[in-house]
Amino acid sequence: MKHLVIVGGGFAGLEVARKLAKEDLAITLVDRRNHHLFQPLLYQVATAALSPGDIAYPIRAVLKDQRNARVLLAEAKSVDAARRKLVLDGGELTYDYLVVAAGATHSYFGNDWSAVAPGLKSIEDALEIRRRVFLAYEAAEREVDPAEQRAWLTFVVVGGGPTGVELAGALGEIGLHTLARDFRRIDPTQVRVLLVEGRDRILSAYPAKLSTAAQRSLERRHVEVKVKSRVVAIDGRTVKIHNAQGDEVLAARTVLWAAGVEGAAIGATLPAPRDRAGRVEVQPDLSLAGHPEIFVVGDLAKVVSEGREVPGVAQAALQQGRHVAQLIARDVRGKPSASRQPFRYRDKGSMATIGRSSAVVATSGYQGHGHLAYLLWWAIHIAFLVGFRNRLLVMFHWVWSWVTFQRGARLITGSVGELPHVGGIDEQGGATLGAPGQVIGLPSASDEPVIGREKRN
Amino acid sequence: MKHLVIVGGGFAGLEVARKLAKEDLAITLVDRRNHHLFQPLLYQVATAALSPGDIAYPIRAVLKDQRNARVLLAEAKSVDAARRKLVLDGGELTYDYLVVAAGATHSYFGNDWSAVAPGLKSIEDALEIRRRVFLAYEAAEREVDPAEQRAWLTFVVVGGGPTGVELAGALGEIGLHTLARDFRRIDPTQVRVLLVEGRDRILSAYPAKLSTAAQRSLERRHVEVKVKSRVVAIDGRTVKIHNAQGDEVLAARTVLWAAGVEGAAIGATLPAPRDRAGRVEVQPDLSLAGHPEIFVVGDLAKVVSEGREVPGVAQAALQQGRHVAQLIARDVRGKPSASRQPFRYRDKGSMATIGRSSAVVATSGYQGHGHLAYLLWWAIHIAFLVGFRNRLLVMFHWVWSWVTFQRGARLITGSVGELPHVGGIDEQGGATLGAPGQVIGLPSASDEPVIGREKRN
Repeated sequence: MKHLVIVGGGFAGLEVARKLAKEDLAITLVDRRNHHLFQPLLYQVATAALSPGDIAYPIRAVLKDQRNARVLLAEAKSVDAARRKLVLDGGELTYDYLVVAAGATHSYFGNDWSAVAPGLKSIEDALEIRRRVFLAYEAAEREVDPAEQRAWLTFVVVGGGPTGVELAGALGEIGLHTLARDFRRIDPTQVRVLLVEGRDRILSAYPAKLSTAAQRSLERRHVEVKVKSRVVAIDGRTVKIHNAQGDEVLAARTVLWAAGVEGAAIGATLPAPRDRAGRVEVQPDLSLAGHPEIFVVGDLAKVVSEGREVPGVAQAALQQGRHVAQLIARDVRGKPSASRQPFRYRDKGSMATIGRSSAVVATSGYQGHGHLAYLLWWAIHIAFLVGFRNRLLVMFHWVWSWVTFQRGARLITGSVGELPHVGGIDEQGGATLGAPGQVIGLPSASDEPVIGREKRN
Repeated sequence: MKHLVIVGGGFAGLEVARKLAKEDLAITLVDRRNHHLFQPLLYQVATAALSPGDIAYPIRAVLKDQRNARVLLAEAKSVDAARRKLVLDGGELTYDYLVVAAGATHSYFGNDWSAVAPGLKSIEDALEIRRRVFLAYEAAEREVDPAEQRAWLTFVVVGGGPTGVELAGALGEIGLHTLARDFRRIDPTQVRVLLVEGRDRILSAYPAKLSTAAQRSLERRHVEVKVKSRVVAIDGRTVKIHNAQGDEVLAARTVLWAAGVEGAAIGATLPAPRDRAGRVEVQPDLSLAGHPEIFVVGDLAKVVSEGREVPGVAQAALQQGRHVAQLIARDVRGKPSASRQPFRYRDKGSMATIGRSSAVVATSGYQGHGHLAYLLWWAIHIAFLVGFRNRLLVMFHWVWSWVTFQRGARLITGSVGELPHVGGIDEQGGATLGAPGQVIGLPSASDEPVIGREKRN
C-alpha cells in the first residue's frame, strides 16, 4: 500500500486527508500542534471574544474514525526528496506521496521585532496579544504620569489587510465598550488605535469603495488609519512611522504585527524555487517540477490560476487540498500523472469584519458593508468551523457579546512583567491614593479621569 | 473617608468588597491577577472539559458599577502593620482597614518537586497539567518501546482529597472515553492512574461509606487507589511510593500534585503566629490579636469555629468574607470593636465528583453518591459561578460532554518539549512505519495495539 505523508493539519492538509478516506492508501498527517486552528477567528481570541478551545479542534478527533489515517505530533524539519523521506524532530517517515501544507509565519522583513510587535498565527500568539492588550489598561490605571498613561492607551497595528483591520476595530471597541466603566483613574473610551498601511488604502484586495467604508467604520471606533506609511522602528516604548510627510515618533506601548507573512521554513528544503516571501513555486497541478509525488498547498505555495496569484485564504487552501486529493486518488488507481488537470481557483469572494455590526463583503454577486455584510460574515465563518460544538459555542459567544458589549475571555495569563509604580501614595486622609494634589480614583475624590478630556493632537 | 484595602479577589476578598457596596468607605481590592477564579471547577480546565474563560471572570467587571471600589492589578508583598501600609510590587497603599485574603499555594513539604509534579491553583497550573496529560498520549503514540509507552500512559495523582479524586477520575475517563479511538499504536483504554493518599482512606473528611463509594467508582475508571502510602521521590520518569509493604518504584511520566497546601507568603509578614501550614491564626472575630483593623480570611486563615477547624473551602471563604464585611460596616458606623461577634461557620456539607454520573455528597440532611449526587454537585457549582454567561457556558459544556463523552478544550499549548524518537522507520514497503518486524499503525498492518493486551502487574 502506498504511503501518503501530509505536513500540516490546517485547512489544506486536513482536506487532503479527509477526501482520501475511501482510498487504498495509508495516510500519516504530521503536525507540530495537536489541533486544527480556525485562523479566520483567531483575532477574536486575541481580543478576548472567544476562548482558544472555541476555534481549535484536535486533529486526532477529526480523523479518529478514518481508519486509513494516523496523526503524529511531530515537527517536520526537512524533506529529502531524493530518498523520499520526511525528516522529523526525531525520526523520519518514508513517503510515496508528500503533501506539504505547513503554512506561513509572520515576517518582520529582516527586523528583529518579534518581542516588541507580536504577530497572530497561533493560539500562543493570540494569548500573548490578549495579555498585552488587557495588561496595558491595567498598567495605565497604575500609572500617574499622564503622558505614560497615554502611551499605555495607544495601540499600533501594523498592516491594513483583513487581520490588521479586524484587530484594530476590536481594539477600538474594547476601549469604547468593553472596558468603558471598568477603571477609575483612566478613561478607556479615550483609547487611541493607529492602523498603519504601506499602500494607498487599507484592504487593498477589495473594491475601493469597501476600503473607504471600512476606514470610516474604523474611525468611528477611534482608529486612526495611516495609509502610505511604514513603520521603520519599534522599541517597546515608541514607534517610528515614516511617510511622505517625514518621520513621526509616537509613544505606544503595544504594537501588533499584521503586515508580512513568509512561507514556513520547511519550504527551503524542497527541490523548488521560492519567491521573496519564501513561498514555494508549484506547477499548475500543485506538484513540484520533476517531482510529481510532492505537492505544496495552502499559504506555503505560490499558486497562479488563470494568470492571477491565488490569495492565502482558507477557501483557496481548501480548494487546493481537494484538488490534490483528487490527483492522488487518480494516481493510486493507476492513471498516468502526465494527464493531471491544472488547479483552477474559484474565487468565492472576500470578507472582513471591522467590529460590531460592521463588515465588508465582496463577492461576484454582492458587494456591501454594514449589517447585512456583518451577518453574512458570521454565517459563513460559523458554517466553516470544524465541529458542531464549536459552531454552537461561537454562535453563543457572538450573540452574547453583541447583546452585552462584553468579551467573555478577558483573562490575563502568563507573566505580568513589570508594571508602573502605583502612584505616589500620600498620607493625608489615608483614602487618597494619588500623589499629593492629584486625588484620584475614589468616590470622595474627583471623578474626572486624569487623561481623556485633553485634546488629541 | 476610611480606606479599606483588600488583598485577593477570590471568594473571600470579593465577598468583602461586594457586601460593603453601600457603606461610606473607599475600597481598594488588590490582586496580582485580573480575574476571579472559580477554583472548584479548575480541575475541569486541567482535564480539558472547560476553557479557562468559562470559570474565570474579570474582578474589574464584577465591581465596575460599585463606585466606592477600585481594583488594582498588583502583587501585595508585605504588610507594615505599624505604619498601616500594604507594600506592593511597586508602591504602597495606606489603609484604615486591611483584609488579607491571599489564599494558599501548594506545598511540597520541603521537596523541590514543582517542575516534576505540578499542582493546581491557577489557570496557568491548569493549562500546564492539560499540556502534560495530552502530550503524554502523543508521546506514547510516537514511542516504540512498550515499557516506555506504558510509562507515558501511567499517571500518578498525589493526594486523595477532593481535588486529587476529581483529577484521578477525570484522567481515567480521558483514556477510557475521550481518547478511546484516537490513536493507532497505543490503546488509551489501558490507561493506568494511581491515586496515592497518606491516610487510611481517600476523602477522609467525608463519612467512611462515601470514601468507599468514591474508591469503587474510581476503580471502575482504571484508578488504583493506594492508601496509607506516601510519595517519597519524583524525578520526572519514576515515582517512589512508600508504605507498610516497603518502597515501590513506578515508571510514570506524569505526576500531579494535590497533596499539601500552604498559606500565601504575605502571611509571614503579618503580626500574628502561623501554624505549620503557614496559615495565620486569627481571633474569633477573624481579626489579628492587637490589630482589630486587620482581618485574615479564606484559605490563608486558620479559623476555629465552635472548637472545630474550618476547612479551606469556598463556602467557608464566602461566610468569612460576609462576616468581616459586617464587622467593618459596624466599625464605620461607629460601633465599638470590643462588641464584635465571633465568626460562626455554618457547614452546609461537602461534595466531590469522581466523573461522569458519579459524585459524593455529604450534608447534614443528605448523604449519597451516584446520579443524584452528581446532579446536585453540578447544580450547586453552576449556581455559585460568578456571571450568568459563565453559568450558561458551563452548563452547555457539561451537557455536551455528558452526551458525547468528549472534552471540548483538548489543546496542547506552550512548548512541546522533547518527544520520543518516532519509531525506527523501515524501508520495506514504504507504508510500514514501525521498526522491522513491528508493523504498526496503518490499516494494512496489525490493528493490535502494541501495549494494552498485556497483563497488568
